[in-house]
Amino acid sequence: MKTERIITLTTDFGLKDGYAGAVKGAILSINPGASIVDISHDISPHDILEGAFVLYQSYSFFPPGTVHVAVVDPGVGGKRMPVLIKTERYIFIGPDNGIFSMALRNEAPKRHFSLTKGEYLIKEISSTFHGRDIFAPVAAQLSLGEEPSCLGEEIKDIRKVEWADPVLKGNRLEGIILHIDRFGNLITNISRDDLLSFSQGGAVKIRIGEMVITGLSKTYSDGGTGRPVALISSLNLLEIAFYMESAQKMIRTERLKPLIVERVL
Amino acid sequence: MKTERIITLTTDFGLKDGYAGAVKGAILSINPGASIVDISHDISPHDILEGAFVLYQSYSFFPPGTVHVAVVDPGVGGKRMPVLIKTERYIFIGPDNGIFSMALRNEAPKRHFSLTKGEYLIKEISSTFHGRDIFAPVAAQLSLGEEPSCLGEEIKDIRKVEWADPVLKGNRLEGIILHIDRFGNLITNISRDDLLSFSQGGAVKIRIGEMVITGLSKTYSDGGTGRPVALISSLNLLEIAFYMESAQKMIRTERLKPLIVERVL
Amino acid sequence: MKTERIITLTTDFGLKDGYAGAVKGAILSINPGASIVDISHDISPHDILEGAFVLYQSYSFFPPGTVHVAVVDPGVGGKRMPVLIKTERYIFIGPDNGIFSMALRNEAPKRHFSLTKGEYLIKEISSTFHGRDIFAPVAAQLSLGEEPSCLGEEIKDIRKVEWADPVLKGNRLEGIILHIDRFGNLITNISRDDLLSFSQGGAVKIRIGEMVITGLSKTYSDGGTGRPVALISSLNLLEIAFYMESAQKMIRTERLKPLIVERVL
Repeated sequence: MKTERIITLTTDFGLKDGYAGAVKGAILSINPGASIVDISHDISPHDILEGAFVLYQSYSFFPPGTVHVAVVDPGVGGKRMPVLIKTERYIFIGPDNGIFSMALRNEAPKRHFSLTKGEYLIKEISSTFHGRDIFAPVAAQLSLGEEPSCLGEEIKDIRKVEWADPVLKGNRLEGIILHIDRFGNLITNISRDDLLSFSQGGAVKIRIGEMVITGLSKTYSDGGTGRPVALISSLNLLEIAFYMESAQKMIRTERLKPLIVERVL
Repeated sequence: MKTERIITLTTDFGLKDGYAGAVKGAILSINPGASIVDISHDISPHDILEGAFVLYQSYSFFPPGTVHVAVVDPGVGGKRMPVLIKTERYIFIGPDNGIFSMALRNEAPKRHFSLTKGEYLIKEISSTFHGRDIFAPVAAQLSLGEEPSCLGEEIKDIRKVEWADPVLKGNRLEGIILHIDRFGNLITNISRDDLLSFSQGGAVKIRIGEMVITGLSKTYSDGGTGRPVALISSLNLLEIAFYMESAQKMIRTERLKPLIVERVL
Repeated sequence: MKTERIITLTTDFGLKDGYAGAVKGAILSINPGASIVDISHDISPHDILEGAFVLYQSYSFFPPGTVHVAVVDPGVGGKRMPVLIKTERYIFIGPDNGIFSMALRNEAPKRHFSLTKGEYLIKEISSTFHGRDIFAPVAAQLSLGEEPSCLGEEIKDIRKVEWADPVLKGNRLEGIILHIDRFGNLITNISRDDLLSFSQGGAVKIRIGEMVITGLSKTYSDGGTGRPVALISSLNLLEIAFYMESAQKMIRTERLKPLIVERVL
């Protein structure tokens, strides 16, 4: 019986040069019936943090068994290892550079493999395009039902990148902007739980740039035009937005900038 | 027997942040065999008119039975209702904000439903991402053969947005630019039929910006380099273009600007 | 038995206006089970060279039997013919304007057909959108197992566009930048074989803009930060890059600009 493993792709290849197409061709050459879904190919070039966040934003909505391939890989061909991580629900494939750090926070138990078994890879591996020559054929083999343990050698652990958690300083909870989306919405590293445990259900005030936002809204339109709202994002993170406007432009801020939550007395 | 309903997506989610990926994951989690086709995720943020036009431009080329999901939804989570519209050929799903107004002009008979039956939706519906939490699961259920009447409650009508029709003023037919495409071609709200009934088969002259175009061409290249052409678009609308150039740039105009058709005496 | 021909798309339609969606709808209306893969829809408008290169970059990684549709077609509806080229491994469909010239260098034997049999096309063919009205239905028929000889009339040859080959001038090998990718990497028209036959295995020096690069690197990271590297691309072409930077910006150059290879004495 055919195993139905969906393969997703999250890369910084862009959609212009045909790199994503070549990856899909390499997968379909091994498994012509593979079901391949793009999460994103528009990660900013070399931006591992952005890739990690976008993967985190999407991966958990796919059915159990899905193979998530993520390739933001400035060190391709160098020392960083091609790896596979198997968790109870998913399989992740990509370079060992921290790109899975956010997603893996939520997944367990984990087994790690290095992708070093030549017989499953494209014969002449280029040193600049492992997405096509290593990760695609491995994903295709998995989609055909191959076991991770046959595709790589088990290793103890992979590289972790510590993502900033919010910090409690006296009466203030300090966080940062983790991602700014296409709409200019500012998504922070402060989770709904962080916020609840800080506020104890009481009202909060948020300082970001030169703006102060009091209280949480439910929808983007709650604030009306020209006023910022703070709300819990669809991923349970504190998010700052403007109705029909870019919060990034209105607040003139950028990724990694701080914001502060205070209790309203 | 498996029902083969294709699902199309037309959104302003962009391709960078993984929102479109999450929608696909949510669909595939319910129907792993679903056939999902992107019409566009690059509608300008919050631009309902653009979304309506792009859907109109593409939807009718899909096989009967296709489920068209369209989400340009600045009011998400607010008062506007999530709706489903069933016509003889297609099913449309999205927010009740006018995004289907152009496509629905051509479709009949229509039945309208509000998507309020919680059992078919994702358990904890975010108030900022109905594409993932309401429209995706409903589309997936339809693709599995579920009936619209089981997924929502029938309602009398939905919100209509009146799209500008061309106006006859004395000897002139006045229209507007409805859409400007990637090539800079100006697509107007004047249809082939409008034009024929105005010109009675005679020659016409078109005034747009400071340019005057006499007669209709058949192809973009008819005008040669540096001269505007007027032709009937692949969607039977009057279109202004330049061979190998952007008409938008050459004429220095923008969407919703007027143009005038006159009879050549 | 169902023939499993994958269909790929390489176009300058962009992803915003729904043109690519309409093409897919037209294919799926004929073969609802068609497997359609995007190579690129972001070819710069009217840029046949870029389309040819991107197709060349990706097409050969798809399984034998794949139908490659490529539409960068400023002359649509005019004199250029819609054509189909069948080689041992693939079928190519698109306008006869040179877009297949690079891919066809590697493919043989070739049979050429003009797509003139009306019964397989959409009834009312627009003169501005052959991607939807001619190429899509022909690709769909092929994916259902139809023979090329039934879809068109065999012709002797198609238009060829001569792509620049590198030139040996005395002690120097002169090439050009053929493509600049999303990362700003400069991909040249000098192949690995060109380079080997020129250098006879000895060391080389590359002059590009005001930079001189000595020797070939294996990976982008070999040069460290701020230094250009020359390497053999994943397509076996000489490529100039910077680690984590855009070589285009660092060298301030553009497509078709020259570069020179010299032997190191």
